[in-house]
Amino acid sequence: MPNPTAAMLVIGDEILSGRTRDSNMHYLAGRLGEVGVDLMEVRVVSDQHGAIIGAVQALSRAYKYVFTSGGIGPTHDDITADCIAAAFDRTIDVRDDARAILAEHYERSKTELNTARLRMARIPQGATLIENPVSAAPGFKVENVHVMAGVPSVFQAMVESVLPSLTGGKALISKTLRIERGEGDIAGPLGALAEEYAMLSMGSYPFQKDGRYGAHIVIRGNNEAQIDAALAKLKATFE
Amino acid sequence: MPNPTAAMLVIGDEILSGRTRDSNMHYLAGRLGEVGVDLMEVRVVSDQHGAIIGAVQALSRAYKYVFTSGGIGPTHDDITADCIAAAFDRTIDVRDDARAILAEHYERSKTELNTARLRMARIPQGATLIENPVSAAPGFKVENVHVMAGVPSVFQAMVESVLPSLTGGKALISKTLRIERGEGDIAGPLGALAEEYAMLSMGSYPFQKDGRYGAHIVIRGNNEAQIDAALAKLKATFE
Repeated sequence: MPNPTAAMLVIGDEILSGRTRDSNMHYLAGRLGEVGVDLMEVRVVSDQHGAIIGAVQALSRAYKYVFTSGGIGPTHDDITADCIAAAFDRTIDVRDDARAILAEHYERSKTELNTARLRMARIPQGATLIENPVSAAPGFKVENVHVMAGVPSVFQAMVESVLPSLTGGKALISKTLRIERGEGDIAGPLGALAEEYAMLSMGSYPFQKDGRYGAHIVIRGNNEAQIDAALAKLKATFE
Repeated sequence: MPNPTAAMLVIGDEILSGRTRDSNMHYLAGRLGEVGVDLMEVRVVSDQHGAIIGAVQALSRAYKYVFTSGGIGPTHDDITADCIAAAFDRTIDVRDDARAILAEHYERSKTELNTARLRMARIPQGATLIENPVSAAPGFKVENVHVMAGVPSVFQAMVESVLPSLTGGKALISKTLRIERGEGDIAGPLGALAEEYAMLSMGSYPFQKDGRYGAHIVIRGNNEAQIDAALAKLKATFE
């Protein structure tokens, strides 16, 4: 049985404007691979209702799991929760359990739970909360969409909260062979090998460093014995 | 007149599997901002015909400029050129001018221009070549889609080859104010300011470091005087 599929939606003008370098994609990709969920697509969109709603609907229909990052804070530019509600035609309002989590958190830090902070307790109707052990304000899940924070430490903590609830498949195994030959010389034997081992994915990533050049050949799949066999064959070709 | 819009398509299993951290998105975002082209969306898809063709068609219709990275090398997993041809219903074959560029390059390095390397001279019908001053093998442009390499040094060189051909708008100006207050305290005044200066985009990005916390407020727009005025007003609020 093939692994379940997933997509990620990164919400944020700060990425598209070049101000911030996204790191959540790389983190999620690595963790999903470990639990056997295949990340098939990532989209980055700006903080605009239409863009977010359209992407959420498209990805939710196309993949088993969707993960979003960004836009669930207390400020005016945090519109993700409203967009998720709109995407699934649900109402949204402050929810008692989310409010209680925030109230306890802010009481501990002697901070007022004002109108802005209460925005973070606005949860689409019927959603399940996602625990945030870093800064309390919860994420949430609507249908197959997991809505999480953009701040990397919070995003990562939420991913860890969510992972046990996913039905994963076989972990992705990835092994690399460094070949100090031009990619154009590797291509022929590699192409033949890729046809022979059609169940594995093989990628060639050229490098050039300190006057040496070649390619890292990465073989990915779920079956370690197959990967090792293919790798050994490739290695023998270039010895 | 609003700035022209753009989208980027990153093609590569190596990003989605978590092996490689993409850096081309961040580079392109920064450079487009400088020349007044608004990057509105980025998609990352795997090395699969259907995924690439679908994304290229959707982005090409929705935005003025599209930029792709990855999948134009000599190995079997480099399928971008064929997908672009298919997306625009064009034929594809080795083209004389592209072959001449490769022939000269490989002759200089005393390397055989074999079948695999010749793949890099396969150019969709009617495309314009994009110069590659790093490693010769050209990118190309079909309609509004600029097809470039995934290796960061080559991608960056190709972006620089392409930028002068774009019709840009006003450069994006971005200024940041660091406020050492909780985001929930900043949210009210910031929201009011964002309404007053609706032509500017304001984002709040919380930080927590060395026991201090607060948010970086980023104000973006094309008019520096407006940005400075808004920034001064915000600063005064929190002094």
